[in-house]
Amino acid sequence: MKMIDFAVHSGEWLRGNGPESDIVISSRIRLARNLGDYPFIKRCTDIDKANIESTVGQHLKEHANLSDTFYFNVADLEQLDRQFLVERQLISREHADGEGARAVAIDKKEMFSVMINEEDHLRMQVMKSGLDLQNAWNQITEIDNSLEEKIRFAFDAKLGYLTACPTNVGTGMRVSVMLHLPALVFTRQIEKVFRSLQKINLAVRGLYGEGSQAMGDFYQISNQITLGKSEEELIDQVTDVVPVLIGYERKARDYLVNESQNDLFDQVSRAIGTLQNAQQISSEETMHLLSKVRMGVNLSLIQDVDIPTVNKLFIHTQPAHLQILNGGELKSTDRNVERALYLQSHLNSSDGGPSEEN
Amino acid sequence: MKMIDFAVHSGEWLRGNGPESDIVISSRIRLARNLGDYPFIKRCTDIDKANIESTVGQHLKEHANLSDTFYFNVADLEQLDRQFLVERQLISREHADGEGARAVAIDKKEMFSVMINEEDHLRMQVMKSGLDLQNAWNQITEIDNSLEEKIRFAFDAKLGYLTACPTNVGTGMRVSVMLHLPALVFTRQIEKVFRSLQKINLAVRGLYGEGSQAMGDFYQISNQITLGKSEEELIDQVTDVVPVLIGYERKARDYLVNESQNDLFDQVSRAIGTLQNAQQISSEETMHLLSKVRMGVNLSLIQDVDIPTVNKLFIHTQPAHLQILNGGELKSTDRNVERALYLQSHLNSSDGGPSEEN
Repeated sequence: MKMIDFAVHSGEWLRGNGPESDIVISSRIRLARNLGDYPFIKRCTDIDKANIESTVGQHLKEHANLSDTFYFNVADLEQLDRQFLVERQLISREHADGEGARAVAIDKKEMFSVMINEEDHLRMQVMKSGLDLQNAWNQITEIDNSLEEKIRFAFDAKLGYLTACPTNVGTGMRVSVMLHLPALVFTRQIEKVFRSLQKINLAVRGLYGEGSQAMGDFYQISNQITLGKSEEELIDQVTDVVPVLIGYERKARDYLVNESQNDLFDQVSRAIGTLQNAQQISSEETMHLLSKVRMGVNLSLIQDVDIPTVNKLFIHTQPAHLQILNGGELKSTDRNVERALYLQSHLNSSDGGPSEEN
Repeated sequence: MKMIDFAVHSGEWLRGNGPESDIVISSRIRLARNLGDYPFIKRCTDIDKANIESTVGQHLKEHANLSDTFYFNVADLEQLDRQFLVERQLISREHADGEGARAVAIDKKEMFSVMINEEDHLRMQVMKSGLDLQNAWNQITEIDNSLEEKIRFAFDAKLGYLTACPTNVGTGMRVSVMLHLPALVFTRQIEKVFRSLQKINLAVRGLYGEGSQAMGDFYQISNQITLGKSEEELIDQVTDVVPVLIGYERKARDYLVNESQNDLFDQVSRAIGTLQNAQQISSEETMHLLSKVRMGVNLSLIQDVDIPTVNKLFIHTQPAHLQILNGGELKSTDRNVERALYLQSHLNSSDGGPSEEN
């Protein structure tokens, strides 16, 4: 298994065929678990870490539903491959940059992945296209239960699951959805929306998690509280609020279509014109322009590009993806040229680019 | 004769087939003359003006080489038609906005035109494509001589031709060339070049004469002195300096091609991408982008657009041209939409746009 085989495909969550996928990119549930027989990561010896890695890895490999699972020892990976997995949302930056024995298991469809020895011994996640938290929950809880039959997780009858950071104690769960909210950004309502989310204890982050900037008008909404509520309550909280946000975004899009048709169509057309014609382009500008194109496709202002192509371009034009697709390391200026060529080749053909890769 | 018949054609000077026409758009010689039997315009009565107009107009219409001449009484023209003639460089803004009997005679190829009752009784000009001052001079002097056989011009043996403004006394001549200098702008050398031109008493102006901003990297270089030198000396002064400026611009273009190929190609490609895709666009932005496209065509970075098309787009996307081509008055926001559609239709076809108009 080489990263290039991953790279030419897009994760299941990017296919854009899930519910409400014009606005909801993906639904994700993450569970943090620790082995009862070992100290938390910060107090682990190198030998502890190696043992945890091999124990959990063995169980994951044996897990019946994970026969098609890829398993990477992160420490053995090239820097470029680690960055690739970060861009792919399969490991965190911290896991990529960490030390000692650590691994990631990823199922072939990239719906399920487990980081071993990140902040906690296990960080498992299920990611689905569109708004599909219930299925994500069904899937992750089944895997969690299956692992728990073989591994004794650190658990306190009163507190629940014990985790390295107190903010995760209890369910160890983070429920999140990635939303594409270009019209709320365009109409300058996004800050107001976020302030109201914070009031009900939901966190808002950019595409690449905590501290990352919201690029391409993508925003990740997640629960901040994991203690004192059941998993179902946490899921419900996010599940209840997302339709409200979808409603706001749809209303903002309607407003733009009705009241600013010219401006909107102009911006969308210019965006695709620049993507089709630039001879060098940064990742940031690409995301910014692709975001407008994505909204344009969803509003039928652009006919000959489809959402899976746009979703794919978002991820394939990230620096590590681009380099792996191109066959090796490139310095930043060369990446900008390669990115422009890649965009041209996928946006200039009449059918919205080659689709054989997907 | 309606303006629309003018509008769909481009003036001879815009055909881009003259010498050095990658850089020199046009060469122009203007002569100021006044009738000895009347006071200068500011002291003319309405009757004086009417008499001057009819006298000069009659002679012009009878002039053997001007059988194909159009003659407009400017006061009778709609505001839009006057603005059209200003954009076309056939009359000045002052002539458009003036008062009383005034006219303009224009030959069919738009090489020759005479304003009657502008600042002086006669302002005649010959405009040629590319660097072609000698032919412009031959042509205008022949017309001037022919008129002088019939009209007694205000002339002083010592001072030469007498004009309303002392700066024109002597030859009454202004020699000018319009240059397209995008590489000198791109490489930030333009100010330095202009300072050295001012030292040798040459004036630098934008596309639409005195006080107008240099839009689209077009600059008009002309003599400031008309007294104490012969016509030939004035022509020689401009003729001598233009090849130096052409050399600077060519050198700057070579530098860009060799040292900033990526940046240059990127900017040129983005420019045409925006022009092909914008759904609304101002006149200023259009000129700014067309300037880059023009340089790109001249440097063979763009293959499927030709210089006559680009030259035509510069003038046809001006506000009055656009409205006349579109069949009537449009408010500014509608013009921006029409301009975008016009650009699309002329830049998106594979042969660089319909050419039957030209």
